[in-house]
Formats: sequence, C-alpha cells, structure tokens
Amino acid sequence: MQLKGDLLIGQRRVQGKLAAIQALNPATGERLEPSYCGGGVAEVELACSLAEAASFAYGETSLQQRAEFLETIALEIEGLGDALIERAMLESGLPKARLEGERGRTCGQLRLFAAVVRAGEWQDLRIDPALPERQPLPRADLRQRHIALGPVAVFGASNFPLAFSVAGGDTASALAAGCPVIVKAHSAHPGTSELVGLAVQAAVAKCGLPEGVFSLLFGSGSDVGQALVADARVQAVGFTGSRSGGTALMATAQARSQPIPVYAEMSSINPVFLLPRALQSRGVELAQGFAASLAMGAGQFCTSPGLVIAQAGAALDAFLAAAAEATGATAAQTMLTPGIHSAYEAGVEVLASHERVRPLARGQAAAGPNQCRAGIFVTRAADFLADESLQGEIFGSCSLVIECADEAEIRQVAACLEGQLTATLQMDSDDMAEAQALLPLLERKAGRVLVNGWPTGVEVCHAMVHGGPFPATSDARTTSVGSAAIARFLRPVCYQNLPQELLPAALRDANLEGCSRLLDGKRVL
Amino acid sequence: MQLKGDLLIGQRRVQGKLAAIQALNPATGERLEPSYCGGGVAEVELACSLAEAASFAYGETSLQQRAEFLETIALEIEGLGDALIERAMLESGLPKARLEGERGRTCGQLRLFAAVVRAGEWQDLRIDPALPERQPLPRADLRQRHIALGPVAVFGASNFPLAFSVAGGDTASALAAGCPVIVKAHSAHPGTSELVGLAVQAAVAKCGLPEGVFSLLFGSGSDVGQALVADARVQAVGFTGSRSGGTALMATAQARSQPIPVYAEMSSINPVFLLPRALQSRGVELAQGFAASLAMGAGQFCTSPGLVIAQAGAALDAFLAAAAEATGATAAQTMLTPGIHSAYEAGVEVLASHERVRPLARGQAAAGPNQCRAGIFVTRAADFLADESLQGEIFGSCSLVIECADEAEIRQVAACLEGQLTATLQMDSDDMAEAQALLPLLERKAGRVLVNGWPTGVEVCHAMVHGGPFPATSDARTTSVGSAAIARFLRPVCYQNLPQELLPAALRDANLEGCSRLLDGKRVL
Repeated sequence: MQLKGDLLIGQRRVQGKLAAIQALNPATGERLEPSYCGGGVAEVELACSLAEAASFAYGETSLQQRAEFLETIALEIEGLGDALIERAMLESGLPKARLEGERGRTCGQLRLFAAVVRAGEWQDLRIDPALPERQPLPRADLRQRHIALGPVAVFGASNFPLAFSVAGGDTASALAAGCPVIVKAHSAHPGTSELVGLAVQAAVAKCGLPEGVFSLLFGSGSDVGQALVADARVQAVGFTGSRSGGTALMATAQARSQPIPVYAEMSSINPVFLLPRALQSRGVELAQGFAASLAMGAGQFCTSPGLVIAQAGAALDAFLAAAAEATGATAAQTMLTPGIHSAYEAGVEVLASHERVRPLARGQAAAGPNQCRAGIFVTRAADFLADESLQGEIFGSCSLVIECADEAEIRQVAACLEGQLTATLQMDSDDMAEAQALLPLLERKAGRVLVNGWPTGVEVCHAMVHGGPFPATSDARTTSVGSAAIARFLRPVCYQNLPQELLPAALRDANLEGCSRLLDGKRVL
Repeated sequence: MQLKGDLLIGQRRVQGKLAAIQALNPATGERLEPSYCGGGVAEVELACSLAEAASFAYGETSLQQRAEFLETIALEIEGLGDALIERAMLESGLPKARLEGERGRTCGQLRLFAAVVRAGEWQDLRIDPALPERQPLPRADLRQRHIALGPVAVFGASNFPLAFSVAGGDTASALAAGCPVIVKAHSAHPGTSELVGLAVQAAVAKCGLPEGVFSLLFGSGSDVGQALVADARVQAVGFTGSRSGGTALMATAQARSQPIPVYAEMSSINPVFLLPRALQSRGVELAQGFAASLAMGAGQFCTSPGLVIAQAGAALDAFLAAAAEATGATAAQTMLTPGIHSAYEAGVEVLASHERVRPLARGQAAAGPNQCRAGIFVTRAADFLADESLQGEIFGSCSLVIECADEAEIRQVAACLEGQLTATLQMDSDDMAEAQALLPLLERKAGRVLVNGWPTGVEVCHAMVHGGPFPATSDARTTSVGSAAIARFLRPVCYQNLPQELLPAALRDANLEGCSRLLDGKRVL
C-alpha cells in the first residue's frame, strides 16, 4: 500500500498545509518517506463538523451495528498484513514479534469491546416504575440509560504504535460508547497511523456509517491537538503520554467555556515491595524477575517497575547483587525516538549525580543510536522521603531501590508515594501481616495491586484497572485498559414518563435487546 | 436543645475564632441567636486530620455496619423533633409542611442509601479468573471493586436546608461510599446545621465509628470552604449553589498539586417545550400547570421552569393569557435570604428593561421583606438566539417564553441551549414526530427529559439523574440525587493474583456478601 502523507478526514484524503513531520528510524537515524504536512484550523474545523454531524446517528446505532463496526475495524487492520508490521518496525525500532503481539492485542481489544457492546451492561439500565397510588405523592415512571458524550479527541501514544494509537484502547472504547473519534496521530509513527487510519476509514464506509465517525489528523508541535481539545464540539479527550503533555491538555479542557473530561494516562513509577520472608527465601529469583520486567521493551511501559522498596540487610544485599548481575548482562535496546532516548539519558544522569543516590548497575553499552542502557540505583528511605524529585518518572529501563530501616519505614515510604498505576507486593505466606498492613495504603495510591507478579503486562479484560490517582492519570475514577474503559465516554440520562414509542429501545417494557436492568434497585437478567 | 454556636469537629465542640455569622429570619429581618464564630486554618487542619485518620477504617466497614450508620443518622434527625422544623422555618422562611416533607425526604434518602449499600451493586464487582493454560501467555487472576475516594468536602445549599445540606444528598452518598465527610455549613441556616450536625455526631458515636467520619465547619465568606477544597487530604467536593461559587471551587480543585473531582450543581433554566397539538388542545391547563410549577417554593429550585418554548400563534396567545392570569393571582412569597431576594430583583429588572423582551405578567405585590413577586416575560426566538445573556439563570419565580416562527426555529432554540438539569416536552400523541426530532437534542443538553410533567419535584430513586452538561453541573457523568450519586465518590481498584485471605471480602470466591458480580464479563447473581 502506497503511503501518501495525507490527513484522513471522514472519507476524504486532505493534504495538510503546515509544517511537515517525517518519521525517523530510531535504529539507524534514517528519515522515512513520505512527509506529513500538518493540519491547521481548517482541518480541525472540518473534522469536528463532520464528527458533530455524525454524532447523533452514530450514538443511536443498534448494539449489533456498533459491534459489527468494531469487528470490521479489526478485520481491516488484519487485512493490512505484513505491510503494517514492517512500517511499525521501521518507525518504532520495536521487534517484529512484539508488534505482531501488539496487533493481536489491538484487534482482540476491538473484538472485546464488540462483545461488551452486545452485552449492554455499560448502559447501566435502570427502571423505577410509576407508583400512581403512592401517598402523599405518586411517583412518575423513571428510567435511566447511559448515552455517548459526543465527539472524542484521542492522542496516539508513542510506546504502543498499535494498541494505544489510532485504533487503540481509547479509540475502541470511545467508538464502543457511541462517540465519533478524531485522532491526533503521534508524530513518531505517522506511516503506521496512516495505515491503521485507512483501515478504520474503510470500516466506516463498509458499515455504512456517517463519515464523521472517524478522522485522523497530523501536525507537528501541539497546535492541532490543543485546537481539537479547545473545540466546542469535542466532548472528551483520551491521552497517553507525558505528565507535562497531559496537564497541558487538562488546562485547556478546563479553560473552555464548557469544561470537558480529560482522560490522561501520564506518569507512574510502579513501586514493588519486597516483603521480608519473600526476600529471604527467593531473593535471587526475585532479582531475575525484576531485571527481566525492567528490561522489557527498554522499559518503555507505563508500568515499568521504577521503584523497589525493601528492608536493608543481607537479604536485600543478595537481591541487589543478583539484580546487578542480571541487568549488567542486559543488552542495550533501541528506544522509540531520539527524544525519548535523550530524556532517558538526562534522567539517569540526574540520578547518577545525586549525592544521596548510589549507582548499582548499568546494562551493556549501546551498540547503535538511541539505545537504552538499563540502570539500577539505590538510596536510603530517609533520603527518598526528603526529596520529592526522586519520585519523578524516568521513562525507560531505570529503577531506584529504597533501603528501609524497618517495616515502619516501608509503610512510611508507601504513605508518601504519589498516585500510581500499579503497586506490587512480593510476599510469602508468612508475610501476610505486613501485606495486610500495606494493602490499604496501596489501594489508595494505585489502580492495580499485584501479588507475586511484575507490573509490566496489562491484561485487556473486564476486571483490569489501568488507572490511578494523579499523576498516574488525570482521573482516578476510570481505567484506560479493559472493558470498563467504555464508561469514560458515557453519561446518564433519565427519562420521566416517556411514552413507550419515544423511549430508547433498551428501556422499553419489552426488553428486546435482552440486557440486564436494575428494576426498582434490583438486578434483573 | 440549646444551640451553642460551635463548630463540630469529630466528637468535639470547638469555638471558632474568626468573624461570626448569624442567621436572619427573612420574613422579619430579625437576627437569630446564637452567632457562629468562623473556623480558620486550625479548625480545617483538625477536621482534615481526623477525617484522614478515619478514612481507612470507615472505608472498610462492612456493608451492614455502614447501612446501620446511615439509618442511625435518620433516626437521630427524626429524634430532633419539632425543634428542627421550627428552627429551619425561622432561618429559611419556608413553610412548615414543606420542611416536614423535606425532613422526610432527607431521612428517606439516608435509608435508600442504606439499602443501596446493602445491595452492594455500587461496588461493580468483577472477576476474571486465572487462565493458566492460555496460549501464548497465561492470564492472571484479576478482580475489581470500587473503593472510597477518601475525605469529601460538602457544601450545604441554601434552598434545601435539610435535603441538600448537612445530612443531605451529598453527605448521604459520600458516607454510603465509605468517605468521611467535612461539611461547610451554609451561612443562611447555621442553627439548622448545628442541630443536624449534632444528630450525625451522635450517630457516629452510637455506631462506634472513628470520630473523623464527620465534621461540621462554619465560616463567613469563602475562606474556610476554599481551604477545605485546597487541603491535600480532601479527595472530592460536593456543592450545590451558584455558577460563580461552583466554578471558583472547580478552579481551586484543579490548581492543587493533585487535582480532585468537584461535583457542583449550579445553574439551569429547565426549558419546557410546548408542542403544537398539546398547546392547541390543552393550552389553559398547561398554563395553570406551568404557573403552579413556577410559583412553587418561590421558584427557588434548581429545576424551576425558567424557559418556555413554543410556536407563535393563537394557541400560544391563549396559553400566555391563561399563564398571565394565574401568575397575576399568585401571592408573593418570602425568599430564603436577602441576598437571594436582591439577586432575583436585579435579574428581573434586567429582563424588564431589555429592549427585546416584553413583560407578560407579575405576581401580586410583596407584603413583607424579601418577597418574590413572580414574573413572566416574552421574547422572540431570533432575539433569544442573538443574546446569550438571556440564557442566564434568575433564581426565583421568573420565566421567559420564547415565541418561535416554526418547528425549525424550535429545534434551533433547542440546539443552542447550554447544559440543563431538565428538559420537558408537553405533547399529545399527534406531536410524536416533533418529539422524536427534539429528543436527541434534549438528551445531549439535559440530565433528565420529561414528558407531560413539570421539572420541579425530583424523585429520590435509582433511575433519577439530577445532573447534566455544564453549566448545569461541573460533571455531567453523574447525578447528585438518587442512588447513582454514590458513584461520585468511588474509584475502581484491580487486584491481581491476591491470595484469598488478602482479598476484600466481596471479591473472595465465597461470595459471602451475596452481591451480584461480573464473571468473565457475564452478570452472575
């Protein structure tokens, strides 16, 4: 398939007129054709007006119709074949197997949302029937469902060029909710974005949906994205990226005459607590698991284990020695972009030169441009507690180990942490009391609590929470992975005394769609 | 019961040290004893530290324990007897029957939330069991529940001194969610607030809960409230009041180093659409219903019908004549405070002197201080569309009728409306096509859509939505009335591979609390 460097607005191809972006192969430094001229005011206007026009009809598609659309997108993406994987490899430096897995995850995610749409639980249907005889006043007939918020702006992430980009989790969940989507492509993988965008565009046409259901914009800098978030027709924002990028979008969304929700997944260092008996009984095994999790994908995951907390002593020393050995043997890996690589290098340099931090291990030296050389550093709890900057995320394979004097200090560290996506307990059954003491603190800090696993690897399922208190995300009440992500793009509406024929189908007495409903507060299947 | 003018912080009585507030009988202008000295930094600090300390234990109370606490609050409020009603009458100018009804609503609300807590649906329990044999990778055991956000700041509203004040809907839903509550009392009814605060304080003690579960602060001006919302320990805010007050709290919440959700219910003019056949067939009846809804409680309801939209012509003229007659016969009613009365007068004056607006009717002249004289005004759709200021809420019995040239202009008015709490269709069965054309617009604008009713009167039930897009509220994804309000104070947490004994009781294999759960995405009772 010939890449053309066009914006995809509804069913149209539009050539941008502003400064161009061009992908770069991070493994070689080579620039990749074509270049993508940026969209401006006119392109944002066109995408938003088409999205607004599509919004009513798309929001009222039947469960079946909407589910088939999501499944068609998955088929179209699979139909792109090897061309998609090859382009994504060139643009991201990620290996083939990883990208094939990510394509599987992306399409699986779309199919999961199709199943979720069909099941209809997300509508949160509620019926409180009229009580005409009630004293002192009768009750009206009251019914509730959730409806789509309207057009959603989605920002592609650099580190998942498929699963969190053009047709990734934010797009899939917004489309599942009934919201048209306008994607601002990540500038690191425009070719991959164009290919996936064409697949979504084709699915819109095949399913006979209004063209404004999907658009894909390119643009250098933040102008196009900021204009999208500021546009009155856009009703919510999905973003995965840096804390500074996320908070900038939050500020724009709040400054609108109508503020809108922003779901920004930003920054997390994913603390791992090594409890005493586990550390004692299987420190070396833990060190190997830790080093493997840290090295995975050059640490370019929101859930990379950036913080390890344990009690100082011989067991921790043994863990550190084994972790140093494993990481010391880790080959350097190409990072996604030169910008990510230089930010990683700068972050590691700050840690390395911190007078209260000691270097423990570095991975093998780089053998090419933009390579991440893993790093492990160590500090004492008192020093960590005294310096907030040590909680900053360093995106890449970098972790800081906190040596605590005792269990009380471990809890003190837990209590001072910022919001996180994950918190992990490595524990044996004899560590139960300490785990029970930590759990309430960790629930308050993180969206997901793990026992005896590693935080990397986020399952796409119904119970997943990929979220957490600020700065992990801008809105701890939601998740950006898993079927519950659909709730981000919905709001409740109550219908009072509507005649049956005016009621939405799902709320009529005859429950034709067969969804579970809350009848007078009781669940009815 | 002797009122003392104290702040109630945990189980303590604390005398404020800053400027005092004193209630005023709006019907007479008389000042009411005692005066309430304002709390300052020290009192906010104490309330927040107690709330934070109570937060973990209270958040993990059993469903049964928490439900009994809510029921005990209701009993304690009822135990205050006539003293509560008498004080509330003096402070609000509201009639006895209305306040007795409001007390019933307040206690009924607490008992509804007790039932909701016991049913446990609000926990949104989800279990995706481990799939150890799955290829290419096994799935971990993943479970999800919703937990309490932490301490919540609640601002009492002036217009519901019981049902939306100290133990009103925000407090009841936050306590139901497992959040400690710190109430900033509304300065218009401090005595009522102290009485209800004492009832909640007593319930905390009787139920053996940590004292920080509830505190009640007084303060003139906005300093105490702003300090509360800025405090790092407070995790969410419930507010009912003006648009300026709500947006000030939103700004403070967003400026924190950790932004928090603000649920502000602010401003709505509650459009009522009179469709042609209904207007033709029963215009006089509609006019009487409209005038009654407008007069109710001197229009001091968030859902007062402030906007009527219909096609110009003989049928509308007949409606207007009947509405003018009914409103002309309406006696003036005492408003809640001199401030609300003067804002009402100023708002009516702006309408009356607007060159594109014509006065239709005023209620009977005031017979005492602070009385609301109802007003109906008329303008043409083109003039309404051209002047945004005509969408501003005038709190009190004041409504603007929009004359439209045709059905297209009716839809144009609907499309230009700001966010609303309610939108109402008055229709006959022959109006179905027009209603179907309007419904998608109204769903996007309002939290509740009514047919052939009046928006005043908000049922406390499971299907209610008292919410809507900005500026009706700061967060359209929720409701502040009804059992779904509990969701405002919760967030999801996922548990990965936790041993049974570390899991929260509701998520263990043995479903001891008997709540419905989503098993692999399927609802299981």
